[in-house]
Amino acid sequence: MSDSLADAQRVQRAIRKLAGVSSVQTGLKILRGLPALPRENRFTVTATVGRRRDVAEIMEIEGEDTSGRNYMAVVDVGTSTIVAHVVDANAASLVGAQACFNSQSAYGREVMARRIMYGEKMGQDRLQERVVEDINRLISTLAAANDINTKDITAVICAGNTVMMHFLLGLPTAAIRRSPFVAADLNPPPFRAAEVGVKVNPRALLYFIPSIGSWVGGDVTAGILATGLHESEKTGVLIDIGTNGEIVVGNKDWLVACSASDGPALEGASVASGMVAEHGAIEKARVQDGTIRYKVIGGGLPRGICGSGILDAVAALLKTNVIDRAGKFVEGSHPALRFEDGQACYTLAQSEETAHKRGIVLTQDDLDNVVTAKAAIFAASKIMLDRLKLGFSDISRLFVAGGFGNYINLENAMSIGLFPPLPVSRARYVGNTSICGARMVAFSDEAYQLAGEISRKTTYCDLMGSNDYVEQFKQAMFLPHTNIELFEPRRS
Amino acid sequence: MSDSLADAQRVQRAIRKLAGVSSVQTGLKILRGLPALPRENRFTVTATVGRRRDVAEIMEIEGEDTSGRNYMAVVDVGTSTIVAHVVDANAASLVGAQACFNSQSAYGREVMARRIMYGEKMGQDRLQERVVEDINRLISTLAAANDINTKDITAVICAGNTVMMHFLLGLPTAAIRRSPFVAADLNPPPFRAAEVGVKVNPRALLYFIPSIGSWVGGDVTAGILATGLHESEKTGVLIDIGTNGEIVVGNKDWLVACSASDGPALEGASVASGMVAEHGAIEKARVQDGTIRYKVIGGGLPRGICGSGILDAVAALLKTNVIDRAGKFVEGSHPALRFEDGQACYTLAQSEETAHKRGIVLTQDDLDNVVTAKAAIFAASKIMLDRLKLGFSDISRLFVAGGFGNYINLENAMSIGLFPPLPVSRARYVGNTSICGARMVAFSDEAYQLAGEISRKTTYCDLMGSNDYVEQFKQAMFLPHTNIELFEPRRS
Repeated sequence: MSDSLADAQRVQRAIRKLAGVSSVQTGLKILRGLPALPRENRFTVTATVGRRRDVAEIMEIEGEDTSGRNYMAVVDVGTSTIVAHVVDANAASLVGAQACFNSQSAYGREVMARRIMYGEKMGQDRLQERVVEDINRLISTLAAANDINTKDITAVICAGNTVMMHFLLGLPTAAIRRSPFVAADLNPPPFRAAEVGVKVNPRALLYFIPSIGSWVGGDVTAGILATGLHESEKTGVLIDIGTNGEIVVGNKDWLVACSASDGPALEGASVASGMVAEHGAIEKARVQDGTIRYKVIGGGLPRGICGSGILDAVAALLKTNVIDRAGKFVEGSHPALRFEDGQACYTLAQSEETAHKRGIVLTQDDLDNVVTAKAAIFAASKIMLDRLKLGFSDISRLFVAGGFGNYINLENAMSIGLFPPLPVSRARYVGNTSICGARMVAFSDEAYQLAGEISRKTTYCDLMGSNDYVEQFKQAMFLPHTNIELFEPRRS
Repeated sequence: MSDSLADAQRVQRAIRKLAGVSSVQTGLKILRGLPALPRENRFTVTATVGRRRDVAEIMEIEGEDTSGRNYMAVVDVGTSTIVAHVVDANAASLVGAQACFNSQSAYGREVMARRIMYGEKMGQDRLQERVVEDINRLISTLAAANDINTKDITAVICAGNTVMMHFLLGLPTAAIRRSPFVAADLNPPPFRAAEVGVKVNPRALLYFIPSIGSWVGGDVTAGILATGLHESEKTGVLIDIGTNGEIVVGNKDWLVACSASDGPALEGASVASGMVAEHGAIEKARVQDGTIRYKVIGGGLPRGICGSGILDAVAALLKTNVIDRAGKFVEGSHPALRFEDGQACYTLAQSEETAHKRGIVLTQDDLDNVVTAKAAIFAASKIMLDRLKLGFSDISRLFVAGGFGNYINLENAMSIGLFPPLPVSRARYVGNTSICGARMVAFSDEAYQLAGEISRKTTYCDLMGSNDYVEQFKQAMFLPHTNIELFEPRRS
């Protein structure tokens, strides 16, 4: 009697106090259940609260204390690869992770432009459906494997490039493709996951980490957040290798980002025997006694080769002169190298040594894709630094990110010219920073705000129209580079 | 090319600038249409923006400049009477107004408690449907009469008591009825009007002016806003006469409000010949040569009598001793007074003098309802002032509000003891302040914020359980009062 506050105001008071927010929203259906629910449950209820920009939204109220079941899905929506994590929001810990190639790939996987054109011609609905199906399959598999009810997943945090964000949300992409390359939205508000088609709690919100520009997405925002580039005194570089590679240069005072269309070869896609970095993938390779030795994720027989394995293999073949500096297989250089229908094909694992009894190979096409990818990334890095009047030696830290799995041999990567030549001690492989940053956002409102600040603060730099890009790209089409002096080893 | 901002950010930038808000929300469907719409309309689009607490929401985007068609509905959701205005949001002007008795009245109209009990027993859905139907009928009538498409009505601003707010939104009322009288929500967020069932633009938002307590609603918040009680140096009183009367005492430093269940007699309901203050209602009455003369709204023959006419008639009958100080008809005092089946019945207009050829009468029951209503209001006012240690003479301004139409004779009202005895010059009839305040909110964000502040700032005072209330009520059951000295005329 001494505190006859209305039910909604009582719940909001508790949420303001516990969640530290000032404004609380409630849907009509939840409000209608609010008088009965506490009274039927001895005044103990559990509210699930989401965030819509500056406003907290009560998404669900349940009787009793159900706060123990509090899960989120975190998704890296890549052009070629989709990675999903299910996380426990209470413990701020990983429950399980799963990856797959994006099934949109069936509609043209090599360059994003092709995908966009397909979207325009055929309608985007099919593309949207495919990516949503992939995400649903990953989440439901993870939920089942970990004995989690999908209705207890009440938030989905996505990071991806701007075009994938458009595909997933069903936003038109026509204007991104044409000059002046205008996105529909770089920073969409959270939507109901159900409205997008993602099957978790029906009232769950789906958040996208905000993009930096039409060609530099929220995966890069997440990457900056995860590596701490935005708070470092010293200037660092982040290279995120994906189907679209992105390069960020900066420190706590400024950040500049650009993109380079490198293709999916370094993710293991567009490669004959390529696969994602999961059980059965060759993740390491080296030459021993003229033969390539490899290590398979999970042990056992290989089913394919992932990005880190491809990098190692190319570096090993270059070292042993099976590949020349132009990136071409040298006929007769090794017994494992054969020519079939005019196409060079190097057998890494014979069919009898593999799980599926098919040989694991590297073809000249694969090699060309790898060389093109590394040239695109190197050229973009070089031009960015040139424009900023910085030399490679001014870079105090190099973060290499991408879906390589647990491992990448940075010396090998540098030996084929993927990165700017730096003392190896300054370089670090940081894994999938897109999903790392998205997880940080999942676990912290502060990180969510910070992601917004980073996306606004980072300057987008368009290299595509630039003349020096073509020139730099051509020079980088050698292993490691036309100008070999750039790659003289240095020590820090 | 020099400003390749994404479409959503471009629209948001314009809205931030024009509407002075920091946070802008957009629905997925609107976002999906955003790239095509400006490009198909020479980059001229019109956004309709609503407000959800601290966030602006883009509710609709149309091609071309459609800003000329910008309407809102403002609704006073009273227990007995529903009043709707359609307003032009550009001109901040009234387009049309219409009122009706609340059709919920069929389910028990005299006291709110009865309504609530019905709601509990039979389910509230029927009650919700009825009030929504009334509102839809009023709005569609107004729209049709003024050649307005209901889809151009993009906001509905409602003011009403807390229980009516619950009925309209379909919120459970069971907990309001039982001690400690807890409402589901005193300050619900805006909802889609369509979700509530109100037929205007499908994405229009429906706002409720926030309530002060379980028994003092947003109609009173609106009344304080409209009269400026909250910003006055001097202490004033607002008496809002409705089926539930409310009294507010205060100034810019403090505000206290209470409610008094007075019944609907002074609105013209629960009176044999009563009607709302519209065309055909007797709105004024006076005695001339022993006969009651009246004035009809719109001229012509009367169809009934509204609140202001009832007040005037009772005052005139008291003055001419047709009614005694106990509020009873005096047998044989006037030829127009007859007794039928033991019930006294005074004929104001003979059947041949009326539009519908039925006599317009005042019965003893009507009179009892009027006396009870005025006693409830007077007793509540007196106790509020006593508790605040204020006398009637400390009141510098008295605002009398209610659905009396254009007119109320304050001297007559005071002569029967409806108001505290004050110099008439300090009293002012201010009409329907519920809808006035709601219109202010419709036209100004500042007023919307202010309504929230007023509702939080005003102290709710519960008189119902108080012993002095019963005593004061009994004393006030005389005309003007048992203690006649309270009503000695004073001059300011």
